[in-house]
Amino acid sequence: MPAPDSISPDQVPHVVVIGGGFAGLWAVRGLARAAVRITLVDRGNHHLFQPLLYQVATAGLSAPDIAAPLRHILRGQRNVEVRMAAVRAIDPPRRRVLLEDGGELIYDQLVLAAGATHAYFGNDQWAEHAPGLKTLDDALQLRRRLLLAFERAEAEPDPRRRAAWLSFAIVGGGPTGVELAGTLAEIARHTLKREFRNIDPAAARVRLIEAGPRVLAGFPEDLSEQARRQLQRLGVEVSTGQAVTAIDGEGYHLGEAFVPARTVVWAAGVAASPLAATLGVPLDRAGRVPVQPDLQAPGQPEIFVAGDLAALEQDGRPVPGVAPAAKQMGRHVAHAIRARLAGRTIAPFRYRDYGNLATIGRMAAVVHLGRLKLSGVLAWWFWLLAHVFFLIGFRNRVVVLLNWTWAYWTYQRAARIILGRD
Amino acid sequence: MPAPDSISPDQVPHVVVIGGGFAGLWAVRGLARAAVRITLVDRGNHHLFQPLLYQVATAGLSAPDIAAPLRHILRGQRNVEVRMAAVRAIDPPRRRVLLEDGGELIYDQLVLAAGATHAYFGNDQWAEHAPGLKTLDDALQLRRRLLLAFERAEAEPDPRRRAAWLSFAIVGGGPTGVELAGTLAEIARHTLKREFRNIDPAAARVRLIEAGPRVLAGFPEDLSEQARRQLQRLGVEVSTGQAVTAIDGEGYHLGEAFVPARTVVWAAGVAASPLAATLGVPLDRAGRVPVQPDLQAPGQPEIFVAGDLAALEQDGRPVPGVAPAAKQMGRHVAHAIRARLAGRTIAPFRYRDYGNLATIGRMAAVVHLGRLKLSGVLAWWFWLLAHVFFLIGFRNRVVVLLNWTWAYWTYQRAARIILGRD
Repeated sequence: MPAPDSISPDQVPHVVVIGGGFAGLWAVRGLARAAVRITLVDRGNHHLFQPLLYQVATAGLSAPDIAAPLRHILRGQRNVEVRMAAVRAIDPPRRRVLLEDGGELIYDQLVLAAGATHAYFGNDQWAEHAPGLKTLDDALQLRRRLLLAFERAEAEPDPRRRAAWLSFAIVGGGPTGVELAGTLAEIARHTLKREFRNIDPAAARVRLIEAGPRVLAGFPEDLSEQARRQLQRLGVEVSTGQAVTAIDGEGYHLGEAFVPARTVVWAAGVAASPLAATLGVPLDRAGRVPVQPDLQAPGQPEIFVAGDLAALEQDGRPVPGVAPAAKQMGRHVAHAIRARLAGRTIAPFRYRDYGNLATIGRMAAVVHLGRLKLSGVLAWWFWLLAHVFFLIGFRNRVVVLLNWTWAYWTYQRAARIILGRD
Repeated sequence: MPAPDSISPDQVPHVVVIGGGFAGLWAVRGLARAAVRITLVDRGNHHLFQPLLYQVATAGLSAPDIAAPLRHILRGQRNVEVRMAAVRAIDPPRRRVLLEDGGELIYDQLVLAAGATHAYFGNDQWAEHAPGLKTLDDALQLRRRLLLAFERAEAEPDPRRRAAWLSFAIVGGGPTGVELAGTLAEIARHTLKREFRNIDPAAARVRLIEAGPRVLAGFPEDLSEQARRQLQRLGVEVSTGQAVTAIDGEGYHLGEAFVPARTVVWAAGVAASPLAATLGVPLDRAGRVPVQPDLQAPGQPEIFVAGDLAALEQDGRPVPGVAPAAKQMGRHVAHAIRARLAGRTIAPFRYRDYGNLATIGRMAAVVHLGRLKLSGVLAWWFWLLAHVFFLIGFRNRVVVLLNWTWAYWTYQRAARIILGRD
């Protein structure tokens, strides 16, 4: 393959990558030495380390600690241009990406890695009362709500209304829900101690609500049980086997019972980016693209789909929507594009499952790696080291470790600053 | 004086302090051992280290690095209750503070330390096009605008419009304007190097516009001249002696000439908090309260005014609106309230001027302490140490020093994350 520098930019194929998350960024990086020019389009200016997003929402980290500008990450890769823009639609027959600012990009190969957003299963009116957590703006908004609830409780003279401000519910017992519930209980019991005069923050009720039979359903049953016990030790009430049937500004319905709660967080469902629908291919129930084994969109050989937007089964089980799977897909798509340009056949994608980690709260986590199962303090250390290791940027790692060391010794959280307006 | 614990809360005088800035917070702390109960009211939940606010706006620091929750700072001071609320008005005849949430506080002594906001000298329509910098939300909004301007320029094919996106103006040559202009020039010339493909960020024009004859008018003339030279070395065009006469979304008028500029920042004027007007006393032209020498509001012996809201002359010169003056005033008010409770006479306030520092950009600053005048690298180190020393909280100091060390070696800025929406 000739070096990129020896070819004029207009002679090489144009690869457009939509989305600067794990899948998109890893695809771009995998094409660093390919004779292509790349345009990476993202609606934000940054790559986000999503596994630590809940830490921004719970005031442990600040937004820049877990994000880095895409331009900066890719500044040394000369064959890529970063474009900050929202994508309106894809027009496969004309091989065009249509931008919301009116611009258009013509592609030879398209990598669609636009990810997912939260889904309310047909109850979109819940969105206002039970925000979800996908972006940094979501996290800052959630942080604001969680911290304000204690402020409102402190100022509320009526005991029943005060109790409603101190009642929190997290809907969805997956990794995000478990992380949020455990950390929120820690904040109420430890971080805010002695700071209020009219309320006892430790009296706050934190409920984690899972409609299925157990939390962390992606883990073996014994680890789910460990997680439940660790959550309860932190002060979380865990409810399983019953779904939330209504949510409004005053509380929620769990089965027949109405529970007053001014703060409800949605961690229950994700839906694919609406861009998938503009491809003109059949989608699955969650709106994702059922891709071919090589990650091509069906019947669209110049379009690859990677990350949370791709629906794929392997050995009878779906490839999970986690960061390692997205990175592997991104890398595979880069290989596939290089193979196609060289006239070689494209190998099918194989997801390699290196294991599954979830953190629960202070010194509590579960780890499942092949036959190894850990829970408690040891699992927490494992989780911490793995996450700090995978953070992009030397500075971020140092700052995050410093914040955690400080938080461990003081029970404090560095980012308890309320930003924005109602 | 009896220990506070021996007195029932209802028997001791109630001191209400409005504003958790330097003046208000230092007043509260000065009353730690007084037999009073204190309510500190602030519309935010945090104390802000305002001297470093420009660093948040220019993406060098994140919001939580320069702020700490008021509750946390004061958790050990048992005679104070923190109330997060906006104040609507003061009702001196009934000794009441009226809150926007409908609540009321009855005071025996009131400390008004609500600070200042930006003023457009009767041109309020400029606010939309030329935002100012007083709060963390202002800083995040400004950061967004500054970073987005380069993104828009990169995506703009028309050369004239692209130039307008790369044209920046800072109106006002005081310390904030100088800091913003110097840092912005550094970002354009160094931080963004190699990151864009269609524009050269170093071609950005950064103009600092001062209507008076020189920048940093609070400093001796030779230091102003030094500051101007250091700014020019960093790439800032310094304009003095001419006022901006109009600002809109496309640019601004400087005298007769129209200058295209999509990003204009207002650092030119401050106006007192509108709460001053509800006191029912005569105000000065900037809306501040001309206080008596002991910081009492004229004719209102139970009301003290401290910080930027207080207008006071000393030895024929106004006490400046800087952090050290606000702290000294806060401390004085605490003394005055304790003296009054003990039946002693209240001494007049004396501002002690320990000197004046302003930073300009990378390794550039001016320092004026009595007969000592410094500029350049040495002044910058002095400025840095002084500011880190006065930051509240051990963790903040470590993180800020770490960020600056990193920024110094890499020319990078840690917080280049665009948050929020248009």
